[in-house]
Amino acid sequence: MSLQSFFDRKTPVAYEGLDSRDPLAFRFYDKDRMVMGKRMEDHLRFSIAYWHSFTWPGGDPFGGETFNRPWMHGDDALSLAKAKADVAFEMFRLLDVPFFAFHDVDVAPEGATLSESIDNLTAITDIFAEKMESAKVRLLWGTANLFSNRRYMAGAATNPDPEVFAYAVGQVKAAIDATHRLGGANYVCWGGREGYETLLNTDMKRELDQLGRFMAMLVDYKHKIGFAGPILIEPKPKEPTKHQYDFDVATVYAFLQKYDLLADVKVNIEQNHAILAGHSLEHEIKLAFANGIFGSLDINRGDDLLGWDTDQFAMDVKEIALAFHEMLKHGGFTTGGLNFDAKIRRQSIDPDDLLIAHVASMDACARGLLAAEAMLSDEALTGPLTARYAGWEAAEAKAILAGKRSFEDVAEAALTLNPQPRSGRQEYLEGVINRYV
Amino acid sequence: MSLQSFFDRKTPVAYEGLDSRDPLAFRFYDKDRMVMGKRMEDHLRFSIAYWHSFTWPGGDPFGGETFNRPWMHGDDALSLAKAKADVAFEMFRLLDVPFFAFHDVDVAPEGATLSESIDNLTAITDIFAEKMESAKVRLLWGTANLFSNRRYMAGAATNPDPEVFAYAVGQVKAAIDATHRLGGANYVCWGGREGYETLLNTDMKRELDQLGRFMAMLVDYKHKIGFAGPILIEPKPKEPTKHQYDFDVATVYAFLQKYDLLADVKVNIEQNHAILAGHSLEHEIKLAFANGIFGSLDINRGDDLLGWDTDQFAMDVKEIALAFHEMLKHGGFTTGGLNFDAKIRRQSIDPDDLLIAHVASMDACARGLLAAEAMLSDEALTGPLTARYAGWEAAEAKAILAGKRSFEDVAEAALTLNPQPRSGRQEYLEGVINRYV
Amino acid sequence: MSLQSFFDRKTPVAYEGLDSRDPLAFRFYDKDRMVMGKRMEDHLRFSIAYWHSFTWPGGDPFGGETFNRPWMHGDDALSLAKAKADVAFEMFRLLDVPFFAFHDVDVAPEGATLSESIDNLTAITDIFAEKMESAKVRLLWGTANLFSNRRYMAGAATNPDPEVFAYAVGQVKAAIDATHRLGGANYVCWGGREGYETLLNTDMKRELDQLGRFMAMLVDYKHKIGFAGPILIEPKPKEPTKHQYDFDVATVYAFLQKYDLLADVKVNIEQNHAILAGHSLEHEIKLAFANGIFGSLDINRGDDLLGWDTDQFAMDVKEIALAFHEMLKHGGFTTGGLNFDAKIRRQSIDPDDLLIAHVASMDACARGLLAAEAMLSDEALTGPLTARYAGWEAAEAKAILAGKRSFEDVAEAALTLNPQPRSGRQEYLEGVINRYV
Amino acid sequence: MSLQSFFDRKTPVAYEGLDSRDPLAFRFYDKDRMVMGKRMEDHLRFSIAYWHSFTWPGGDPFGGETFNRPWMHGDDALSLAKAKADVAFEMFRLLDVPFFAFHDVDVAPEGATLSESIDNLTAITDIFAEKMESAKVRLLWGTANLFSNRRYMAGAATNPDPEVFAYAVGQVKAAIDATHRLGGANYVCWGGREGYETLLNTDMKRELDQLGRFMAMLVDYKHKIGFAGPILIEPKPKEPTKHQYDFDVATVYAFLQKYDLLADVKVNIEQNHAILAGHSLEHEIKLAFANGIFGSLDINRGDDLLGWDTDQFAMDVKEIALAFHEMLKHGGFTTGGLNFDAKIRRQSIDPDDLLIAHVASMDACARGLLAAEAMLSDEALTGPLTARYAGWEAAEAKAILAGKRSFEDVAEAALTLNPQPRSGRQEYLEGVINRYV
Repeated sequence: MSLQSFFDRKTPVAYEGLDSRDPLAFRFYDKDRMVMGKRMEDHLRFSIAYWHSFTWPGGDPFGGETFNRPWMHGDDALSLAKAKADVAFEMFRLLDVPFFAFHDVDVAPEGATLSESIDNLTAITDIFAEKMESAKVRLLWGTANLFSNRRYMAGAATNPDPEVFAYAVGQVKAAIDATHRLGGANYVCWGGREGYETLLNTDMKRELDQLGRFMAMLVDYKHKIGFAGPILIEPKPKEPTKHQYDFDVATVYAFLQKYDLLADVKVNIEQNHAILAGHSLEHEIKLAFANGIFGSLDINRGDDLLGWDTDQFAMDVKEIALAFHEMLKHGGFTTGGLNFDAKIRRQSIDPDDLLIAHVASMDACARGLLAAEAMLSDEALTGPLTARYAGWEAAEAKAILAGKRSFEDVAEAALTLNPQPRSGRQEYLEGVINRYV
Repeated sequence: MSLQSFFDRKTPVAYEGLDSRDPLAFRFYDKDRMVMGKRMEDHLRFSIAYWHSFTWPGGDPFGGETFNRPWMHGDDALSLAKAKADVAFEMFRLLDVPFFAFHDVDVAPEGATLSESIDNLTAITDIFAEKMESAKVRLLWGTANLFSNRRYMAGAATNPDPEVFAYAVGQVKAAIDATHRLGGANYVCWGGREGYETLLNTDMKRELDQLGRFMAMLVDYKHKIGFAGPILIEPKPKEPTKHQYDFDVATVYAFLQKYDLLADVKVNIEQNHAILAGHSLEHEIKLAFANGIFGSLDINRGDDLLGWDTDQFAMDVKEIALAFHEMLKHGGFTTGGLNFDAKIRRQSIDPDDLLIAHVASMDACARGLLAAEAMLSDEALTGPLTARYAGWEAAEAKAILAGKRSFEDVAEAALTLNPQPRSGRQEYLEGVINRYV
Repeated sequence: MSLQSFFDRKTPVAYEGLDSRDPLAFRFYDKDRMVMGKRMEDHLRFSIAYWHSFTWPGGDPFGGETFNRPWMHGDDALSLAKAKADVAFEMFRLLDVPFFAFHDVDVAPEGATLSESIDNLTAITDIFAEKMESAKVRLLWGTANLFSNRRYMAGAATNPDPEVFAYAVGQVKAAIDATHRLGGANYVCWGGREGYETLLNTDMKRELDQLGRFMAMLVDYKHKIGFAGPILIEPKPKEPTKHQYDFDVATVYAFLQKYDLLADVKVNIEQNHAILAGHSLEHEIKLAFANGIFGSLDINRGDDLLGWDTDQFAMDVKEIALAFHEMLKHGGFTTGGLNFDAKIRRQSIDPDDLLIAHVASMDACARGLLAAEAMLSDEALTGPLTARYAGWEAAEAKAILAGKRSFEDVAEAALTLNPQPRSGRQEYLEGVINRYV
Repeated sequence: MSLQSFFDRKTPVAYEGLDSRDPLAFRFYDKDRMVMGKRMEDHLRFSIAYWHSFTWPGGDPFGGETFNRPWMHGDDALSLAKAKADVAFEMFRLLDVPFFAFHDVDVAPEGATLSESIDNLTAITDIFAEKMESAKVRLLWGTANLFSNRRYMAGAATNPDPEVFAYAVGQVKAAIDATHRLGGANYVCWGGREGYETLLNTDMKRELDQLGRFMAMLVDYKHKIGFAGPILIEPKPKEPTKHQYDFDVATVYAFLQKYDLLADVKVNIEQNHAILAGHSLEHEIKLAFANGIFGSLDINRGDDLLGWDTDQFAMDVKEIALAFHEMLKHGGFTTGGLNFDAKIRRQSIDPDDLLIAHVASMDACARGLLAAEAMLSDEALTGPLTARYAGWEAAEAKAILAGKRSFEDVAEAALTLNPQPRSGRQEYLEGVINRYV
């Protein structure tokens, strides 16, 4: 199988500026342009997701494969995996992205036994390591798929069967070992089946304790092998299960506190998961920063009118600008990045659709970054914000917040007050945003 | 104004048994019947909510008053408040309930100043105290309305203006003082405006810190005055604000941990709020028990097809049975109860509609309690549950959970495992439930 | 492959009455019991859906097969199809149901060409015809799957490519021919891909015209071959597509009027599709009867908190009772029935789970039917309804409705009116319902 | 009461171009700029909604008035109404809009009797007529509020009481008379209570027949008085009622066909209502044009994460651009326009917030219009669309659509076909859109 010719395109996509009409050129993403003291590439830290781009065949619950990728059809699983890797690294080069991300089962076929699966993963890891020597691309994160195999149908760490828990430990150990070997910047846990289909057969407290133990053991192991990056939990409220334990950022924050994991575990936030939980992307990012657990982003978008994960490519500049507006206030990403956990629609069957989708979304992200920079530079939002809370900078107000006043003290002082509301100026601020995007 | 005749009914509603067709008789609620060692009345601990039943005029965002209650029209606010109290206590007697609950502004008119409002509340508290001497009814909880007055339009404890924060302290102090004086079993905080309309003008971290401080001060004060009951936070995800900080039980649990409030604060769970947040009532109850913060229930129901709080009377026996199934496993209510945070529809304009709605829902609750008792007695759900998790009772599984095994230990052991999934038996269990309800 | 032993159970499930605790016995479904002049079996007209029970392997978007059915693994597609048919007819016998329903591709493998697919379907039709000679079961309806094959990824009748339209015609012709040969009582069209993923690439008007033409041609053909039953369109608002053209009953009714199809096409309503569209099952049934297009029911339930089609087994007696309450007022089913478009959860992997799920839901349906009968007999709902609208029975009111009064006439008469609202008595009626379920 | 000074601003808001940072200047809306042969003002046809801007006090279900408008407080209702009209016409002048729209009760106080209400409306109509002589502003449409008064709590035309039906006729006659006198371009019907709270007390078929009769009588009357504009029904799925009959465009289209109203009645589409019904604004517009019933737009936006009508100011340029892209293909508005059925947030309490909100949204609309013009001029979307459906331009395909081929003909032809899917190019098109907005 020769896949050199999967993409017609041979040269990396490049920046051409605003006037370009080429769908395979960047109009905003100019990787070396400096933004608040850092190169654009170092701000955006784009990552390609192996699963959606190379492993998903285009199926949905009512229909099968549409993509007909050559590396998905054949008898020798390892050969197919290598062919897939060739295409993947070719795409990394064409899109000139600094990172990629993968699940164990995306890259290497599952074996008949755990040992065989681990051997397969190791074999592919060797190939990846070799490819990465000559490629620019680095690993943003690795993860283990603990949800597709039927053994995990009732959960992995939260399974009623301790053997499944153990099997998951074995699989995750191999995955973090591979991630570590490839220099991954983070290790991610998405609890796709850590939840329930019905409470009728579920002991929620017990399952949460299992999950807490699992994470604590993983954190210990991470330290033992010297893996420097954080563990990232990816919140999602539901799907595939009726209800998942890592519902949203707030729920994960509760969990991390309870099981004493705050020092080592942060969150990987996804737009589509955020809206399924009833929050905006911006909300989840702000809450994560407010609690010191912001890690990374799975950048995509859901459909506001649909109740499932559509994982579409992010195209909304305003939403991205507001995300970066918050991130830039905190210095931007450290170990995290913008991972394209996004899939082309199943009707986008041409190889070029894969490239075009990434280019269009990278450009939307770059445009959002530039808008955020401009808003911060103009204090377009931060100025009014500071003014709005100015009262809390007064000495007495600070004393209250610092715990130096009792309830009775404050209640007594309130007897002479008659506070008057001030305009929230929402429409003014919405108009301001529209100036930048 | 004479309101003695507001209700035609003069004698308390009584238990008549299954064959009764009288909408003003109980078919299941037999208050002295023993259920798992306690009287039904002591299990169910019904409470009438003052606001919906006596203060809400039947309006909605597109229409005004429909009820035309006599105590809502007149010039002398305190006289009207007293007339309202007469009707309320008459209804408590007619429904023979052990509890009621109120907001400060439900019972006493707001004055032109905070002092005047407090005086009005004190005057009504005197009247309530006197009425309660000869009445059976007790106070389940009191609370302060920190959301209706325009001063709170941008929040109370989370307001950008520290004067509003202070005013809220003054108002809550008076409300908990009144609650304490009337022997209230709990004090409730619902953060109706503690949230935001837009993140564009909101400093989320600062506002959460303000809320944490407010609650810590309130807890200190509670101890100071010797108020024995817990403070209960009532989670709700949205409405009236676009997004509220006390989104759901998990979010409140995160908040309580962060601000060190776990010892004194629990949750007051509401069905309609639960489903607006994407959870079932049963989920929220289980999560609260799993984390040791279960307090009380606002018993009502939302409309599954609507996106706002409809606060309808709970009529779904299955849902109630599953709630009690969980509660009974933990011994049932301690300080909490079933508060009817439910309103008759705005077309239910007859006085008898108020009585009939409560009777129908009390009966549904009693029926749910009896179903839960029977299921527990038969181990209909608990038996299969124990069997499902039996593997975790093995010594090695326990050792893992107890932290006596490392990640590598477990991974090593997993190499020889090939766990096989077992049926979750959901449809079997759903069929079992239908036998009891 | 010998599948005689797929089910342990050998004798048909039978009625045992209320005290039975056997999950493989009926507590309510007593097929010969008379209900309003008809046998229960003839009212309920249960039908097993071939696809969910025998063709779906238990996968979801995040995981693969869980069921491991023996007839899904092997090389000879036709042999596997025959083995599957053996199990299916065995289950029809065990559940003692009067009907089944199928898609063409559920029962016969797709061939390399349309002709080959048609030959396969014909071969299986022969086998079915033979089996049906000695079996009780009859065909409620057949249908063609125009959504799984990648050729239909952009629609069947609404495809931008007329060759796909033509292919769909070819496939449907074979499916209705097979349905006709097997004596099917109806023929169903579910437009799974008749809709769009994005309006950016969609000519909605053109596609609707294509769909109108397709249905008109099908109706002509039905008459030509003497197929006596109706064509049924099954409304669904979304999934798999972002938006489907047959959104709900009202949308289908608009379509049938526009393309002059009212005489031959009715609707097949599904609970889960109804709630995804923002309606209750009862609403859709009432609207269909109001417009004379009620056909049949896919009986299942969705999860109120999830935004996708879960197709769970119907277990809510109240919902079913209200559905039958409306149907019985119109004489119940004619050609339609209760088709179990329901799938056991993917964790319900035991063969017995298939039987138990159907038994539990059949019992819930029977109980709902009995409740509806009792409510009608007592005029529990119909009595108050007649009273509520009594004013419209007056002569002048009837004259207005009959078109015998002008707008000005009525406006003039209104000048002396001061209509007073009357209670809607919702809680009373909710309490009444609870007496029957 | 002197309200000349309600707005500080004295001169109309003007176009200043892209570089302006003044929230009271237009950056895109340049009313005389020509767009596809028409002035911008004549394309956009902006209209101010009387109710949200001048009648709504800022309340929500959990809180009261926040705005403290001077014309809302006082004893003499007619004087207050006149003062309100002064402010309204001053705002029309400041925003330089060509249209406004009103409900009867927005502009004139309800009287104790229908006659008195009509007299009040006539008095205000006189004042409006006089003001309009010297003002630029014209009436886009008038309507009657049939949902706020308690008499309508169970519906107007669909009320169980024929006296309420008659009263509604009387009120609507007065409203369309006033609209006609003021030269209104359309008359609107929004069925705010034409629906149900529970099906338990509802005869849906009867109520729909009542509504059909009501509309038919209104259409007759419209012709009789020579009112030239269309009647517009405004679809909304729910709120205030649990379920409204005019659910969405498709439902209204079904209704218009059934009751033979297509010649005279069209739809007034609202973004927020569209998304509450599960559709996009663009979908509803396309469906209305496809069926020949497009009338006008209530331009606003809902919150994608909330389940109720928020009526926020439209700020999403992409959404507006796609709406105009469709409208311009059909020549744009005829009698309709962009009516701001939008309310400033209840925290936006300053008078200038009212102006700023309209200016920001007018600019977003103008920008959307310009983007649509550019896309059409470049054939950015229409070019790919034509190419996608090109196959249907072939003679045989046209013959099929024209009804010249039978089902069997087409099925026979299909036997030799093997159609291959082509890419839907969604991401490419999404990237294209981003070039224009």
